[in-house]
Amino acid sequence: MGDVRACAEWLVAKLTAMGLTAEIHPTAGHPLVLARNAHLPDRRTVLIYGHYDVQPVDPLALWQSPPFEPEIRDGKIWARGAADNKGQMMAHVLGVEQTLRGNGELPVNLIFLFEGEEEIGSPHLGPFLVAHREELRCDVIAISDTGMVAPGVPTMGYGLRGISCCEVIIRGPKGDLHSGLFGGAVANPATAVARLVASLHDAEGRVAVAGFYDEVRPLETWEREMWAKVPGVGELEYLAATGSPAMFGEPGYTTAERTWARPTAEVNGIGGGYQGEGSKTVLPAEAFVKLSFRLVPDQDPATIMERVTRHLKQYCPSGVSLEVIPGHDGKPYATDPHSRFGKAAQTALHAVFGMDPVLIREGGSIPIVQTFREILEADTLLLGLALSDAQVHAPNENFPVANFEAGIRLNRALLAQLANV
Amino acid sequence: MGDVRACAEWLVAKLTAMGLTAEIHPTAGHPLVLARNAHLPDRRTVLIYGHYDVQPVDPLALWQSPPFEPEIRDGKIWARGAADNKGQMMAHVLGVEQTLRGNGELPVNLIFLFEGEEEIGSPHLGPFLVAHREELRCDVIAISDTGMVAPGVPTMGYGLRGISCCEVIIRGPKGDLHSGLFGGAVANPATAVARLVASLHDAEGRVAVAGFYDEVRPLETWEREMWAKVPGVGELEYLAATGSPAMFGEPGYTTAERTWARPTAEVNGIGGGYQGEGSKTVLPAEAFVKLSFRLVPDQDPATIMERVTRHLKQYCPSGVSLEVIPGHDGKPYATDPHSRFGKAAQTALHAVFGMDPVLIREGGSIPIVQTFREILEADTLLLGLALSDAQVHAPNENFPVANFEAGIRLNRALLAQLANV
Repeated sequence: MGDVRACAEWLVAKLTAMGLTAEIHPTAGHPLVLARNAHLPDRRTVLIYGHYDVQPVDPLALWQSPPFEPEIRDGKIWARGAADNKGQMMAHVLGVEQTLRGNGELPVNLIFLFEGEEEIGSPHLGPFLVAHREELRCDVIAISDTGMVAPGVPTMGYGLRGISCCEVIIRGPKGDLHSGLFGGAVANPATAVARLVASLHDAEGRVAVAGFYDEVRPLETWEREMWAKVPGVGELEYLAATGSPAMFGEPGYTTAERTWARPTAEVNGIGGGYQGEGSKTVLPAEAFVKLSFRLVPDQDPATIMERVTRHLKQYCPSGVSLEVIPGHDGKPYATDPHSRFGKAAQTALHAVFGMDPVLIREGGSIPIVQTFREILEADTLLLGLALSDAQVHAPNENFPVANFEAGIRLNRALLAQLANV
Repeated sequence: MGDVRACAEWLVAKLTAMGLTAEIHPTAGHPLVLARNAHLPDRRTVLIYGHYDVQPVDPLALWQSPPFEPEIRDGKIWARGAADNKGQMMAHVLGVEQTLRGNGELPVNLIFLFEGEEEIGSPHLGPFLVAHREELRCDVIAISDTGMVAPGVPTMGYGLRGISCCEVIIRGPKGDLHSGLFGGAVANPATAVARLVASLHDAEGRVAVAGFYDEVRPLETWEREMWAKVPGVGELEYLAATGSPAMFGEPGYTTAERTWARPTAEVNGIGGGYQGEGSKTVLPAEAFVKLSFRLVPDQDPATIMERVTRHLKQYCPSGVSLEVIPGHDGKPYATDPHSRFGKAAQTALHAVFGMDPVLIREGGSIPIVQTFREILEADTLLLGLALSDAQVHAPNENFPVANFEAGIRLNRALLAQLANV
């Protein structure tokens, strides 16, 4: 708690020294840091979001250098948060510092919004946005908290998957039964939960829940064409990254399309009966499965969970009872990468990296992006600078010095471009 | 290990004090206990088998009294092993003790053979039987390690199901993956294991493994007629005993027929991915299922496991690898209940309980019965004393004091009847 607070105070001191008005906003948890230049009328207002909290470092023994003593080795910065998100956030801070030193002012009205609770789900950011809606009003938001598809390839994200989770509990006998004495005469909850899970997909891998794909926005031709040429997201790269024996998924889509633009039904956990070594011939009293559904525009998490629940009830085998416990959810997100703000960001990316940026979506969820849209009514540009081997959330997190420096230049070019749209 | 050894030593001391010659026979695992009276020529030799090892007690929290501190409550003995098999075994020991006290001798040559590895498949009993075949030669074997169909209804078992077990491990990615970043593009081992389990049965509950029923001996007419009249094994009784919301099983058979004379495929344990509270959106690296198949005459465990393995390989979903680890097995058993020894046992049962015994098979497996037949060339009488709510292998195992006392009387009547055939 003290270290996180100290980090917020360090940020305020740094931002103040740069010439910005900066302050700490306490929350019931870790504080937010808010900073701005002198806002002028008739200029674009740009909000840059980042987070200064990080994931735990354990297992500490696997780190090659201490996680909280950044070390530059082999052209990379090695430290917890080097990529997620201190490094990417500081690229924006230092870009602004350089512009202020060089020009004495920024070309836009700037708001830095840095939080200390992203890694625990941003519990206090939504209420803060509601309470400070007017002072946070902006034209566009920029976040560098995602990835580049390959080294040196400028990457702009314009979509994120949403999510809808539930836990299913199947109950049969009142207690575990001897599978010899009762096997064959009562339904086995572990068998039943397996049959229920099996009902979620057809044999080819499509989700078999009625209506599941009804609101899915089809991929546009330009997206499929661009993604086919994006480096680093082919089957071979995914095989190497995952170690899976083979790729598998919805027929008719590439691996990138499956992860960025198609919804899923995944088992995150399944369990029931004997879990120890060897065998114990019980017929278990109950079994569970934890399911999550990754969603894409324009699927609605609540609607999907209704249809999933109806499916589970319909396909629940005989002789057992079913309970569906809804879990957390988040809406999918997509913005138009060809909007004027999107085009400005692409121009900035091209200027820094010397090539046309690739336009991608992300398979993961960043719920705060949807929250920004709903509360601040502004869209977000995802200008990721991390590489796929950044080891985020893992030991030996790293961030290339070249990406850090490119991020500083990107911030300068981005603000310059956004000033003119 | 120490506790099991102590139990064997307790038994030897008890049997010796009764006047028998008793000794511990060490094995590579848990020891056997062997005891006998002075054998005379021209008398029947009766071997009584039991086991003093028990199943694990977890989940411990569900026990109403400590499992290793027997408590008499509501007319029942509550403890792990109260029914399976310490309680039933001790009824024979105490019956012999009473006969010896009353008569000074037994009417037959007696061999007590008690083992400490029944619950792990009796790995050392077979070799012991081979090595001691001559000194264990007997006319008939009696075991009380099964059930009575209803309180007070004498029950003789003449058949047992066999078993064949395996564990299946499904492996996908080299480590757990973020289900957002990778979900949809790689096969999920937990989904795969569920689909594999679902492939084991058809929609009506028949086992769908090719050739699974090929060697199943059809029920005889007298069996179906007798079983239809056996008390305590109707749907209502099974519903009450299990607490299941409904009975479920192979079409065309009654509940008794399903458990006594039809083979099964059961999940004893299934697991994979996140097992804790709430949600964690991982795509698990692997998942497992522990399967057991209860077999009936004339199915062969090795043949069935071959067919099951072929089925699992054939139905294993794409994108994952499969490992099948064979487990323990045991052949099914059936003997003629109308043999002279069978009739003698029925006379003893009638004498103790005051009514004609019902002739049944058992759903459980006692592989050693088949081993006895093969090595000692003797058939086994199954004189079960446990009730269907005995909670064997589960928390709150119990055994009515009345059954315990009837078992003591049964031992005395049985030895008297067998002496005369």
